[in-house]
Amino acid sequence: MSGALRECRSVLLTGASRGIGLQIVKDLAKKTEMPALIIAAARNPEAAEDLQRVAKEYSGVHVVTLDVTSQISIDAAVEEVSPLVGAEGLNCLINNAAVHKATDLEMVTAEEMLKTFECNAVSPLMVTKAFLPLLRAAAMRGSGMGVHRAAVINVSSSLGSVELNCGALTEFKCYPYRASKAALNMVTRCLAEDLESEGIFCVAVHPGWVRTDMGGPQADLSVEESVSSILSLLAGLSEKDHGGYLDYAGKTLPW
Amino acid sequence: MSGALRECRSVLLTGASRGIGLQIVKDLAKKTEMPALIIAAARNPEAAEDLQRVAKEYSGVHVVTLDVTSQISIDAAVEEVSPLVGAEGLNCLINNAAVHKATDLEMVTAEEMLKTFECNAVSPLMVTKAFLPLLRAAAMRGSGMGVHRAAVINVSSSLGSVELNCGALTEFKCYPYRASKAALNMVTRCLAEDLESEGIFCVAVHPGWVRTDMGGPQADLSVEESVSSILSLLAGLSEKDHGGYLDYAGKTLPW
Repeated sequence: MSGALRECRSVLLTGASRGIGLQIVKDLAKKTEMPALIIAAARNPEAAEDLQRVAKEYSGVHVVTLDVTSQISIDAAVEEVSPLVGAEGLNCLINNAAVHKATDLEMVTAEEMLKTFECNAVSPLMVTKAFLPLLRAAAMRGSGMGVHRAAVINVSSSLGSVELNCGALTEFKCYPYRASKAALNMVTRCLAEDLESEGIFCVAVHPGWVRTDMGGPQADLSVEESVSSILSLLAGLSEKDHGGYLDYAGKTLPW
Repeated sequence: MSGALRECRSVLLTGASRGIGLQIVKDLAKKTEMPALIIAAARNPEAAEDLQRVAKEYSGVHVVTLDVTSQISIDAAVEEVSPLVGAEGLNCLINNAAVHKATDLEMVTAEEMLKTFECNAVSPLMVTKAFLPLLRAAAMRGSGMGVHRAAVINVSSSLGSVELNCGALTEFKCYPYRASKAALNMVTRCLAEDLESEGIFCVAVHPGWVRTDMGGPQADLSVEESVSSILSLLAGLSEKDHGGYLDYAGKTLPW
């Protein structure tokens, strides 16, 4: 986030306790031109030892409790974050929290479909809605589009691409995850349309297949490689990327 | 369904009490080469007077109670349909039941998102899973791919296309419906991949914008026009359409 980072004063990220989320917090905190405020939201921050360590080391990192599937928890997080960002509002919301379980046709249940959809597609929408007043406050103070002004970054997946669900990529049997990420892509596109006139940028980003608890040990990328690319990508986002579906390297994916 | 109809012995359709579903039942029943069995499933058939009238008039139409959001109801419907189709199995399952409510960003709730996703994306998957033994029985007796052998037709919508969610089409504000249909498209593609080797055909079909209770009076097409096109489309489906996303006129839509 070098270029745009100068103007990106505040970032809020969900799912910050591990994996890609934790690494984003670490990398942002280490940058010389880090955002003044890195708000790291996690469902159960007390149990997130790594995150607590980062927050202790870097004064700009604030840890906030946020269960993205609970409206009460979302509203409480907005209450907590509002005075932190103040009148300048929130520049960048990264909806990163997600769940995943390999589930083939035989194993898939309605319950698992609903649970995964709730966390991966509904929650990013409800979190975005709740933080809109803070994003709007930031948008009113800037111009252009991107993380320097007001942006919603939805962490999606190439597994959410219906078009790419053929050939080798079909090996990953995960009805709930795939359906939830396709729905998240649609939510992103709806948000992009609705928020464009207010100068709030929206994009869906595929972080790559990453060696985290979720991605497993066979994945292509280390979490450091993925996050380094993602942060470069975020720094360079502009009008042309609004409403798009990009991978960590900036390549546009088919829906 | 003229050509393929000769060999399509049985059709099961959900959401048969009104709108497009009811019209499909009527049109199929009237055809000289109708499938021997038209199983019209509805949540509350007692209240579906029009459907009852059609069933009284045409002996090939069997009305079955099916609440697609209830596994108990789905299992009971399978029990009821199994002896009807017998060893020849089920040739064509049309997942048509769906809900829709215009819901913009301000109005949308997590509850509405989940309810719509459950009916429009999860239910077609769970109904298909439950009827798979009957579809497999039919698939084992045929060759090629299409409604003459074994087919799953998911009634989707162009509003489920993420790619088309721009320009004039964004006027329809309906986060829950759009997200659910994008997810249904993904489910269709997953099913197509998983069932191809067994000879079970899968496709997502956009019926057009139709003047029904759901589509409203401003819509482009009468229900008769839409259904006439859909039935022609179904009759002509073959290998090349497997896993596709087609409108009523046979045009491929972008995901």
